[in-house]
Amino acid sequence: MITFYHAPWSRASNVLWLLEELGTPYTVEKVDIRAPGGVPEEYRSIQPNKKVPAIIHDGILVTERAAICTYLCDVFPEAGLAPAIGDKLRAPYLTWLVYADSVFDPVLAAKAHGHEFMGSGYSYGSFSEMVDNLERTLSSRPYIAGDRFTAADTQIGGGINFGIRVLKTLPEKPVFLDYVERLAARPAFQRASQKDFAMAQEAGMVPG
Amino acid sequence: MITFYHAPWSRASNVLWLLEELGTPYTVEKVDIRAPGGVPEEYRSIQPNKKVPAIIHDGILVTERAAICTYLCDVFPEAGLAPAIGDKLRAPYLTWLVYADSVFDPVLAAKAHGHEFMGSGYSYGSFSEMVDNLERTLSSRPYIAGDRFTAADTQIGGGINFGIRVLKTLPEKPVFLDYVERLAARPAFQRASQKDFAMAQEAGMVPG
Ligand SMILES: N[C@@H](CCC(=O)N[C@@H](CS)C(=O)NCC(=O)O)C(=O)O
Ligand SMILES: N[C@@H](CCC(=O)N[C@@H](CS)C(=O)NCC(=O)O)C(=O)O
Repeated sequence: MITFYHAPWSRASNVLWLLEELGTPYTVEKVDIRAPGGVPEEYRSIQPNKKVPAIIHDGILVTERAAICTYLCDVFPEAGLAPAIGDKLRAPYLTWLVYADSVFDPVLAAKAHGHEFMGSGYSYGSFSEMVDNLERTLSSRPYIAGDRFTAADTQIGGGINFGIRVLKTLPEKPVFLDYVERLAARPAFQRASQKDFAMAQEAGMVPG
Repeated sequence: MITFYHAPWSRASNVLWLLEELGTPYTVEKVDIRAPGGVPEEYRSIQPNKKVPAIIHDGILVTERAAICTYLCDVFPEAGLAPAIGDKLRAPYLTWLVYADSVFDPVLAAKAHGHEFMGSGYSYGSFSEMVDNLERTLSSRPYIAGDRFTAADTQIGGGINFGIRVLKTLPEKPVFLDYVERLAARPAFQRASQKDFAMAQEAGMVPG
């Protein structure tokens, strides 16, 4: 059984999508990351920065998005979301899962705040290097790790979608739009979007 | 066969240590990340930010430290550096490997540059939250993922060592010093340090 610590329309939303792709039962534990008084200190024993997502599976806690994805897809191999150890796609799959957290997210967040992490002191590189890397890769193959959909697409694809439509800092490159369209056609993506919307509405985040 | 793209005394050095722990043959391909004219553009096809480390194993490219560690330790299970899928320690192992890149490194780098990533726009949290998380964890167990040494210790332990001795921004907490001492006693750590020192010397980085 999986408990999923979540906040709607957040960095946890791509993991919600992954859970729908997995098709394994899970329960949502809502964490009000926007609470005026801050997230209760008790939650720190689950996530050390009091952030979402976090997962408890059979009593085992997992935090950090790339770790959650790697962990879950290896534990539920029948979902076919992770190339197995020994599969040629295992390396790009892992690389892109980590890149989503360690390069893509910080570079995009910095851009949204109007700056860049410059110089060799940081481990990210520039915004344009990141955009070029994505464009080069997605021009050569339909999915981020290769010829088939993997959990890395939930993190990179969900991130590209967010960067284009919400942050509006990622350029609307045709190859990005095609990719996002291909992903958005997936039933699990649509279920996750609907569930996340319903939770956002319940939390009073939807205007009107 | 493994080709390891490396620069001495860099973020790749903890992966050098991991390679020594693995005990598998590898060849070093030096990347002069400090070259006055910058790293040659050709290297971008190996690492999209022209950074180190990168690994090619049996013709398969792997970049991003947490991905390299996860990949290698799963492919060489006989080294015993990764809890297998299904092992209780797999989750903390993956969490700490990712945390090293996605939280520990950026928070430490920001501190060294005299600032912090504030607010919920960033995915890191504060310097003191990071130090507390490390201290809490290492007070409860000898290794970062649990009762035994894993590849996560090369990344977190190597990072703590660097943060205390080189950057001098991490506090010299007794629990950190004990941990680093325990790790530095490992023959593979010592071999890696010696090899890295020799390469730094060859590159003219050692004063005197
Ligand atoms: N390093 C974490 C970061 C997750 C993260 O940044 N979550 C945001 C969601 S947008 C959050 O919970 N923010 C609440 C806060 O910072 O108070 C991961 O990758 O899992
Ligand atoms: N996201 C990469 C970052 C690696 C990284 O930042 N490497 C540094 C070594 S200190 C580098 O090559 N810097 C050279 C440069 O930025 O020109 C990873 O985690 O593997």
